[in-house]
Amino acid sequence: MSEAESKHAAKARIRARRMNKRPVEDLFAELSAGNRQALSEAITLVERKLPAAREEASALLSLCLQTETPSRRIGITGVPGVGKSTFIERFGLHLAEHNHRVAVLAIDPSSSRSGGSILGDKTRMNQLSQHPNAFIRPSAAADTLGGVARATRESILLCEAAGFDTIIVETVGVGQSETTVHGMVDFFLLLMLSGAGDELQGIKRGIMEMADALFITKADGDNAMAAKRAARQYASALHLFPANANGWVPQVGTCSALEGTGFDTLHEVLDAYFSSVLASGRMVDHRKRQDLLWLDEALRHEMMDVVRQHPDWERRFNDIRTQVANKALTPFSAAHILVRQLLSASV
Amino acid sequence: MSEAESKHAAKARIRARRMNKRPVEDLFAELSAGNRQALSEAITLVERKLPAAREEASALLSLCLQTETPSRRIGITGVPGVGKSTFIERFGLHLAEHNHRVAVLAIDPSSSRSGGSILGDKTRMNQLSQHPNAFIRPSAAADTLGGVARATRESILLCEAAGFDTIIVETVGVGQSETTVHGMVDFFLLLMLSGAGDELQGIKRGIMEMADALFITKADGDNAMAAKRAARQYASALHLFPANANGWVPQVGTCSALEGTGFDTLHEVLDAYFSSVLASGRMVDHRKRQDLLWLDEALRHEMMDVVRQHPDWERRFNDIRTQVANKALTPFSAAHILVRQLLSASV
Repeated sequence: MSEAESKHAAKARIRARRMNKRPVEDLFAELSAGNRQALSEAITLVERKLPAAREEASALLSLCLQTETPSRRIGITGVPGVGKSTFIERFGLHLAEHNHRVAVLAIDPSSSRSGGSILGDKTRMNQLSQHPNAFIRPSAAADTLGGVARATRESILLCEAAGFDTIIVETVGVGQSETTVHGMVDFFLLLMLSGAGDELQGIKRGIMEMADALFITKADGDNAMAAKRAARQYASALHLFPANANGWVPQVGTCSALEGTGFDTLHEVLDAYFSSVLASGRMVDHRKRQDLLWLDEALRHEMMDVVRQHPDWERRFNDIRTQVANKALTPFSAAHILVRQLLSASV
Repeated sequence: MSEAESKHAAKARIRARRMNKRPVEDLFAELSAGNRQALSEAITLVERKLPAAREEASALLSLCLQTETPSRRIGITGVPGVGKSTFIERFGLHLAEHNHRVAVLAIDPSSSRSGGSILGDKTRMNQLSQHPNAFIRPSAAADTLGGVARATRESILLCEAAGFDTIIVETVGVGQSETTVHGMVDFFLLLMLSGAGDELQGIKRGIMEMADALFITKADGDNAMAAKRAARQYASALHLFPANANGWVPQVGTCSALEGTGFDTLHEVLDAYFSSVLASGRMVDHRKRQDLLWLDEALRHEMMDVVRQHPDWERRFNDIRTQVANKALTPFSAAHILVRQLLSASV
């Protein structure tokens, strides 16, 4: 079944469920028994925006929040061409063969308009997608990064409730997506190519300093030496960076999907990281802090939705943007005037 | 006159002005004639939050926006102990003696509650504050970073209208203040100490990648060699960073306020940067983009103010935070519920 067909089928099942007044408790029961169909259906549910769907999703998520499955949430980013999906396939298989249950999600705001998705073409992770310990889900369909972020953040909880202990969130280096992913994972991995030249143009400033580990991909054949040299350079550069809030020093390594090297090392790095943050209690604190930051962020989004739903929003917003661009108003005066206009007119 | 007394006097003048129905056009005329008293008064006006004051401020700023004074907006940050104010005093004097008119503003959200301020103690910049080409203003009094940001961003415009061509915005490495300052300047300077050890603990991740220049301070006496070595290390580390959006490669240097060295070099770096971005038109683009980002940010703030003014805000927000912390609700469901509660109850 194609991705589009399977999404369609999931929506149809959701409608049927609602018609039959089948409660979310049933969906939760299937989900927590590890039923992949139920997991897919649940993710489709949290991706929906209609108020009725949101209410159901909220009830389902409240049940999931109680499950407390221990998990590792890992964000992975890197420029196009770095070999992200090959990397995730090989590393995912490595973890799956070590009895981890691995779920792969993706954030790709650039695909949201076109309906495409970075993981849409599942053949890119052909082997991993067929592994019994793995679950791969294309990027959420939503028209804003905020919407994608919510759907992905909530999908992580669903995957955990379904028994997946390693959640990989893939992102492309577009706009704010790395920051968004960084805010929902425990560990952030940056993939790089050897050579500090043009390849670097692709990654945004600030990303390197978010990384808990930096791995140079394609460290094989003629490229092996260059990759090792790049790793040494990055290691000494990262040494100059401020330490992570939890005292973790970012680790640097090389890997080759072709030769299957480096994945053991990365696995050890992850084990070391999670042992340390679990023992110190910092992981729990970190997730709590993330939740409260998401609450603030979500509040701002909800409030912006209130004004955006105003029938005059588009016209008035464009008008005020023009005034700011033409230096007739400061951004602050402009915002003040716009909000007064919209709220007095409707609410 | 003490800072508190002078603020008090400025407020008294504003009240008198309003009583006499003296229009903001007069204040603008005095301001643009370079009257420092008028500039101080105008800054005090933009710091105020009362609707009437905001309206006056908005009218004044609209006049200022038309003036188009060419200016350089420079953000400066660094850990406590790096010698920021000594640096700014020496570099400010260097610029003032080269016929630049230098205004120094500060963002220090940590001081907002206590009423203190990083520049409150003007004796720290005793010589600069007495120079006819310089104007120093302590950090804006406001109870949120958003409020400080607005007041500072608007104060930049006032300083420019008063004929200052170089606006230095100082910040401490607290919370989001660097990001805030970075969003309102053309050029961002990071001051560092030699030695990549404990000093680094103080600066936040992501700051290094914002820097357009990084200068090692206190490069004198016994420390001179270590500073030069640190500069070389940072230069090679920054080389591994992605290039700035405008193609500018961050410059690294050393300086000594004690021996007066390095300020010529920094001055040349600034000249090179501004020649380049002015010639390419990137400076105009960059400021336009910043304005539109501030508009988005200001809109979110205005909307949050709407809910925060709700009489039940504090109680309900604390209640929902507790539910998120206790994993009864996801942050997104929580935000959705809270906004519905507050908006249905009041507006």
